[in-house]
Amino acid sequence: MTVGGAGDATAPRRRDARRNRELLVEAAHEVFTELGLQAPLDVIARRAGVGNATLYRHFPTRAALIDAVFRGQLGGTVAAGELARTAPDAWTGLDTYLRAVFRTLAADRGTNDLMTTHVQGIEALDDVHAHNRETLELLLERGREEGTIRADVTTEDVLFALAALGRAVPALTAATAGAAETAATAETAGADATAPDAWYRPLALFLDGLRPAPAVLPGPALTTAQLGDVLRELGPHRAPVRSVREE
Amino acid sequence: MTVGGAGDATAPRRRDARRNRELLVEAAHEVFTELGLQAPLDVIARRAGVGNATLYRHFPTRAALIDAVFRGQLGGTVAAGELARTAPDAWTGLDTYLRAVFRTLAADRGTNDLMTTHVQGIEALDDVHAHNRETLELLLERGREEGTIRADVTTEDVLFALAALGRAVPALTAATAGAAETAATAETAGADATAPDAWYRPLALFLDGLRPAPAVLPGPALTTAQLGDVLRELGPHRAPVRSVREE
Repeated sequence: MTVGGAGDATAPRRRDARRNRELLVEAAHEVFTELGLQAPLDVIARRAGVGNATLYRHFPTRAALIDAVFRGQLGGTVAAGELARTAPDAWTGLDTYLRAVFRTLAADRGTNDLMTTHVQGIEALDDVHAHNRETLELLLERGREEGTIRADVTTEDVLFALAALGRAVPALTAATAGAAETAATAETAGADATAPDAWYRPLALFLDGLRPAPAVLPGPALTTAQLGDVLRELGPHRAPVRSVREE
Repeated sequence: MTVGGAGDATAPRRRDARRNRELLVEAAHEVFTELGLQAPLDVIARRAGVGNATLYRHFPTRAALIDAVFRGQLGGTVAAGELARTAPDAWTGLDTYLRAVFRTLAADRGTNDLMTTHVQGIEALDDVHAHNRETLELLLERGREEGTIRADVTTEDVLFALAALGRAVPALTAATAGAAETAATAETAGADATAPDAWYRPLALFLDGLRPAPAVLPGPALTTAQLGDVLRELGPHRAPVRSVREE
């Protein structure tokens, strides 16, 4: 046990620690995608091939692990928002941006949980929510000036409807996966050469409701605080129950 | 222990059985409303003040209990559908009908689970789903003829969007309960003397998307089978998770 001997052991130990961290983030991504953000942490440790103690040493809280897993993916949404703000017109910006967001929402249930409900205590997520809100606000305001967005629709209206629709996107993607492949090879009515993802049709239907319309929306719009309460109430995804007959 | 003595005991026993059944249906309604349709059955038995054996004697399956609890409530939706089919025009019929449906969806999470996902094995529910579909189909077809509904929107488009929006209704109602009372006493922009329920604004925004629009909806519409798969994937409501920091 010389000082030199201890020094020789440090580098491999650091390498092991780094490798374990990578394995944990990878396993957590897989498990969150399959089971949602409330997946048991010991399932993640087992998948990574490490003990629970190692998981807790690297990630003392679930929030820290979630942050590590999704930071990159959330960054993509911010980048899409930045791009949309420079679109030639607000409608194109809104359409392009929301297609990027829904593509991410469809990718996995973990990201979907993160983006459609207000899971608290995740720094990277707070930044994305703020940026998303600002992007929509800017595009809606510009759309009102350009005459393509109705005057009576608020950012809260749009955020609520997107959360409701967005939460249904994984179910839609799962149920239409086969048909999308078929449609991609067949002729489609759309402008794209390939069939658009299944979520684009309901999103387009929603967007059309934002166009200037003769009717005025009824009742008071949600306040920002109320929308926060709604998103907390929505809660995360859970595995579907196939039938009550099975019991 | 004479034959006469046994005969005297039959009537009170029957009365007890009837009373227990009523207590169970009442308790089940409360518990389904609070916890959703997957609530543990022993919680229901305990709330009713009877043993688990008594619950299973009256309701051998969860489906039988769900059927007994919600048959009346589901009947109201069918009645609203019948009424809507006789509306002076399709738009009024659709608006009135969907307001009735959303009012029921907002009433409790048990009914919401039932109506927005395809829980299987409940006869009363199958009838309501079929009737709901038929009502929407008739009104959409008539609306197309009257020029108030766009030609490219399908019954599946509407059913999917209503399921997605409808599932978010309880969260919306819970989060805006206080504000609705305040608004009811203040002056409102709407035609009603009282403030409309919080869900009416997003529903109206969705309905406006159904109006004839310059854009054509992209991609293939959902098939009926695909919509069934989507609704099974959506799964029932579960209690929200407040914060990941708590762990």
